[in-house]
Amino acid sequence: MISEQQREQARARTVEYLKKAGVVLTEEEIRNIEIADFGLGDLERTGLQLFTYVNCPRYCAKDLVLFPGQTCAEHRHPPIDDSNPGKQETFRCRYGVVYLYVEGEPTENRKCSPPQGDEAYYTVFHEIVLHPGDQYTIPPNVKHWFQAGDEGAVVSEFSSLSLDEKDIFTDPRIVRVPQ
Amino acid sequence: MISEQQREQARARTVEYLKKAGVVLTEEEIRNIEIADFGLGDLERTGLQLFTYVNCPRYCAKDLVLFPGQTCAEHRHPPIDDSNPGKQETFRCRYGVVYLYVEGEPTENRKCSPPQGDEAYYTVFHEIVLHPGDQYTIPPNVKHWFQAGDEGAVVSEFSSLSLDEKDIFTDPRIVRVPQ
Ligand SMILES: [Zn+2]
Ligand SMILES: [Zn+2]
Repeated sequence: MISEQQREQARARTVEYLKKAGVVLTEEEIRNIEIADFGLGDLERTGLQLFTYVNCPRYCAKDLVLFPGQTCAEHRHPPIDDSNPGKQETFRCRYGVVYLYVEGEPTENRKCSPPQGDEAYYTVFHEIVLHPGDQYTIPPNVKHWFQAGDEGAVVSEFSSLSLDEKDIFTDPRIVRVPQ
Repeated sequence: MISEQQREQARARTVEYLKKAGVVLTEEEIRNIEIADFGLGDLERTGLQLFTYVNCPRYCAKDLVLFPGQTCAEHRHPPIDDSNPGKQETFRCRYGVVYLYVEGEPTENRKCSPPQGDEAYYTVFHEIVLHPGDQYTIPPNVKHWFQAGDEGAVVSEFSSLSLDEKDIFTDPRIVRVPQ
C-alpha cells in the first residue's frame, strides 16, 4: 500500500506532466486524479496515474500519465456480456514516448523490459512505439502492457465503457480496484 | 462553396489553434482536417474545423476548432435505430472560451447572438460557458449550437458513434456532408 501522502505527491507530479501536454484540470479534478499502484506498493516502478473525463455506457475518455520508466502491468479487458465483447482502447500519445506491447510476433531488440523480478507476469512482446501524434487501437481481450521512456508520457485513451474491476492482470498479486 | 485554397488556409490556421491547446497532429493528419462550412460558403461566420481521432461503432473522439466569433450552426443528433438513441456528445474546452446553447430556460443577457440575418434558424438559448477545463454533456436529440469567444476555441469532443450525415440542422439551407 502507498500512503495518502505518496498519493498526493503523485497527483502533484501528474499535474506537471499533464501541463507539458497542454492539459488543464480544475482544482476539483486534480483531487480526483487516480493513482493506481495495482496493490504492489511500488508505484514508481509499476503503476499508472489517470484522470477520467467521462465514463458512460456509450463511451469513455481518460488521460493517462506515466512517470519516466514506469510500467502499466500486463492485462486484458475480457468480454462482459452479449452486448460487450470487452473494452476497446485507442491510445494517443500526447507527450513523451510510450512503448506499448501487445499480442503478436515478439519484437527483436525491443526497447523495454518488464520490471525486474516480475518477468514471469509479462508474456506479450510485440512492440508499438508511440510518439506525440501517434495512436494505436487495442482490440478487446488482447493482452497489453506499456512503459514510458525517460521523459515520462501523457497518453489520451478513447474507449468503450471502462469497468476497471473486470480487468484481468497476468500478475496474480495485482488488485486493480482496492476494496 | 469555399475554394480548395480557402480550405488549405483554414487547415493551416486550425493547426495554429490546436498548438495553443498543446495538440500535435502528424503531417498526414493535418491534410485530413475537415473544414465544414455547412454549404453556406461563409466559413468565418458559420463553420467548424475538426479532426477525428477515432470514430467506430463503440466510441468517437474529435478535436473541434472554432475561429474567433465563429458559430457552429444549431443542430441535433436524432435517434438512428433501436440500439442508437442518437449521438451523445461530451464537450471539453481546451483553449479559449466556447459559448454553448442548448434546450432549456433561455439565459437572460446571454453573451452571443446567432449570425446576423440567420436568427430564424436559432431556437435554443440556454447558455453554458466553457473555459479550459470545463466540460458539458449534450444528451441525444437535444438541439444545440455554439460560438467561440474573441480568442477562438479548441474543444475536445468525446461521443458515441458519429454519423454526421444524419445530423438535423435547423437551417434548411445547410448541407452537413456535401455529396
Ligand atoms: Zn488496457
Ligand atoms: Zn452536435
